[in-house]
Amino acid sequence: MNCEIIAVGSELLTPWRQDTNSLFLTEELNAVGVSVRFKTIVGDRRTDLAGAVRTALTRADILIVMGGLGPTEDDLSRESVAEALGVTLRRDGSLVAALSARFAARRMTMTDNNLKQADVMEGAEVLVNPNGTAPGQWIDTEWDGFRKLVMLIPGPPGECRPLFEEQCLPRLRAVIPERHIARRTLKATMIGESAADALLAPIYGAYPDVETTILAGNCEIQLHLACAKTTLEAAKARVDDLAGKLEEALDEYLFASQGETLEQIVLFYLELKQATLSVAESCTGGMLGERITSIAGSSRSFVGGALVYSDALKIAFCGVEPELIAEHGAVSAPVAEAMSHGIRRRTGATFGIGITGVAGPGGGTEEKPVGLVYIALSDAQNTECSENNFRGDRQKVRQWATQKALDMLRRRLIQYR
Amino acid sequence: MNCEIIAVGSELLTPWRQDTNSLFLTEELNAVGVSVRFKTIVGDRRTDLAGAVRTALTRADILIVMGGLGPTEDDLSRESVAEALGVTLRRDGSLVAALSARFAARRMTMTDNNLKQADVMEGAEVLVNPNGTAPGQWIDTEWDGFRKLVMLIPGPPGECRPLFEEQCLPRLRAVIPERHIARRTLKATMIGESAADALLAPIYGAYPDVETTILAGNCEIQLHLACAKTTLEAAKARVDDLAGKLEEALDEYLFASQGETLEQIVLFYLELKQATLSVAESCTGGMLGERITSIAGSSRSFVGGALVYSDALKIAFCGVEPELIAEHGAVSAPVAEAMSHGIRRRTGATFGIGITGVAGPGGGTEEKPVGLVYIALSDAQNTECSENNFRGDRQKVRQWATQKALDMLRRRLIQYR
Repeated sequence: MNCEIIAVGSELLTPWRQDTNSLFLTEELNAVGVSVRFKTIVGDRRTDLAGAVRTALTRADILIVMGGLGPTEDDLSRESVAEALGVTLRRDGSLVAALSARFAARRMTMTDNNLKQADVMEGAEVLVNPNGTAPGQWIDTEWDGFRKLVMLIPGPPGECRPLFEEQCLPRLRAVIPERHIARRTLKATMIGESAADALLAPIYGAYPDVETTILAGNCEIQLHLACAKTTLEAAKARVDDLAGKLEEALDEYLFASQGETLEQIVLFYLELKQATLSVAESCTGGMLGERITSIAGSSRSFVGGALVYSDALKIAFCGVEPELIAEHGAVSAPVAEAMSHGIRRRTGATFGIGITGVAGPGGGTEEKPVGLVYIALSDAQNTECSENNFRGDRQKVRQWATQKALDMLRRRLIQYR
Repeated sequence: MNCEIIAVGSELLTPWRQDTNSLFLTEELNAVGVSVRFKTIVGDRRTDLAGAVRTALTRADILIVMGGLGPTEDDLSRESVAEALGVTLRRDGSLVAALSARFAARRMTMTDNNLKQADVMEGAEVLVNPNGTAPGQWIDTEWDGFRKLVMLIPGPPGECRPLFEEQCLPRLRAVIPERHIARRTLKATMIGESAADALLAPIYGAYPDVETTILAGNCEIQLHLACAKTTLEAAKARVDDLAGKLEEALDEYLFASQGETLEQIVLFYLELKQATLSVAESCTGGMLGERITSIAGSSRSFVGGALVYSDALKIAFCGVEPELIAEHGAVSAPVAEAMSHGIRRRTGATFGIGITGVAGPGGGTEEKPVGLVYIALSDAQNTECSENNFRGDRQKVRQWATQKALDMLRRRLIQYR
């Protein structure tokens, strides 16, 4: 069965706001074997919304209308969907009572406009919304001779997601013939998208029953594998078989076999090897520390570090010798190495990372252009330093620099001890 | 005139990808007085795409079909739009020659499938695409008795954006009656959305000719003002008049009058007051430094700092006395203050910021729950420390902590010297 998601709200037609709930809904729908065939975004106008619902009824089996369920005049989803389906709305007494109770419990006066949230389409079931005032609705009906499932769900993510999971998914599962779907996500970094595709296409091409999607972005390549079979074991076997071959082909570029982030993988290895990390960041200005500490529990392996944006701090916090900076410049391999040594010794960590570079857009020279970043990684025995020429704007250069630093550490950790 | 944007591509119907070009297009369209009335996302199926185009023709004056212009079998926008409009495609000889030349210049063989990129709808103008192989198309036509402007533009952002600006906008401006639109964006922080709306609604309600949109997110409130008049002066006067009243009402909560980021404002004041900043971050782990250094030129005011995730580093890098940590705990006002003093003295900066807290999800106690964050700001004379209970997940707590720290500094800087 296929689905159309209609996201309702004039704010979603501005340059500043975007529907993001549909990504979550798509993931949940795919997991029960429903594909999303169209997404429509429509503003708070009754004629536009009713028209969009009619169009969706002609081309999809399942309709999810998201948003427009609140108490204001702009909230028109109930009226518009009822109009398109040709059913009437009735005011539900128990919903009116629940609304009154909710307001009373908060010692707030309920204005009359709130009552429209108790209007239910003839033939619809009410979907309880514990996180907001507006309930959802589910209607399993016939339209133009075809069976249609139509859901009204609230727009705020904190209401939409739990309501969909708790109220809509069980109802969908009861209607849709059961299929078993196995999924895996592999991730690789420091390999280009076209190189990865050229390497992998012949492999996944031999598995037409496994849906393989390659996506590039955020300095990594993601491979999403999905396979549907009559038993979960059969689906898992096919996905794992293909995943094994892709992993082998990706070799050292692969960092995650189960969708983990690079930060998670690095922290996993640090704990496994009972090692700790400190960082000295110049051009990345805290981004590497921020990425690592975004993971809960990172304090077990990450001790901290220094933001040595100025030369003076490179000297004070990392013990870089002023002569070294004078001779090679702050953006140089010797300074990156000295930063990694210095921060490691000062903090007593197993590993030290030093990053220094030209993030741009200004500050580049012919000899040291924007995008030139030195990344050094050291432990008590070994030091390595990479010279990189990253492309893109300031944000991109800094992202690539932290990605490369994490990947250098990952590769080192795999072989450590 | 109103517009429908159709984003084409099966990847846009997965849980991992989302159309983002439409935000940029919406901004550009609004600026010439065109509102976006619908957005449709459709996969690479000819029947679905042709159907979506027919639906759009019934409800919008301007159609932008984005993506599906490449050389592969999945690229079906030309064929589908031609079918919906009822026009034929002809192969354009000069486009074939340009394609051949492009491949020859790169010493690549042009496979036959590339030729379809030279197919042009009868009556359409070719939109030159210097950044890719697939040109766009523009057709000014009649459909069912109404004038319709239909554009085919490539999907990759690096091709879509320049092509739209250079090829589509001038053609649109020539067709659309000229209107002058003035815009302003105000931003405030540390005030809730409903409190802001209650405060501001009576003010902007008196300016029905200025479109006011209030958006909350990323720890701030944005107010977008737009007004269209026959002269730019008249439009600007209305927007500035309303902006002045809103600014006055927002008072100390307002941080930006022209859409600036909080980081930009803080760096602006630091330079203006010839002051410098250093930071000592515990639970934010580099996020504050990362935010500040995301702005080009931040090195003029930001000297750096320390990531003092462990107690040992709080002592080593900030000179926090071990007894202070033993007595009050690492998450406490005295330790935050000592961190801000220590980092300021060590770095010689005008201002020092110290942040220590419980970001969660683990590590909270009854006495010191998740979300408790102390933020201290000091200069040579004064120290202030705020105790905060931020709500939300780890990422949200850390975002709020850095936002509050920047806002404390902004408020201090306004009065400094």
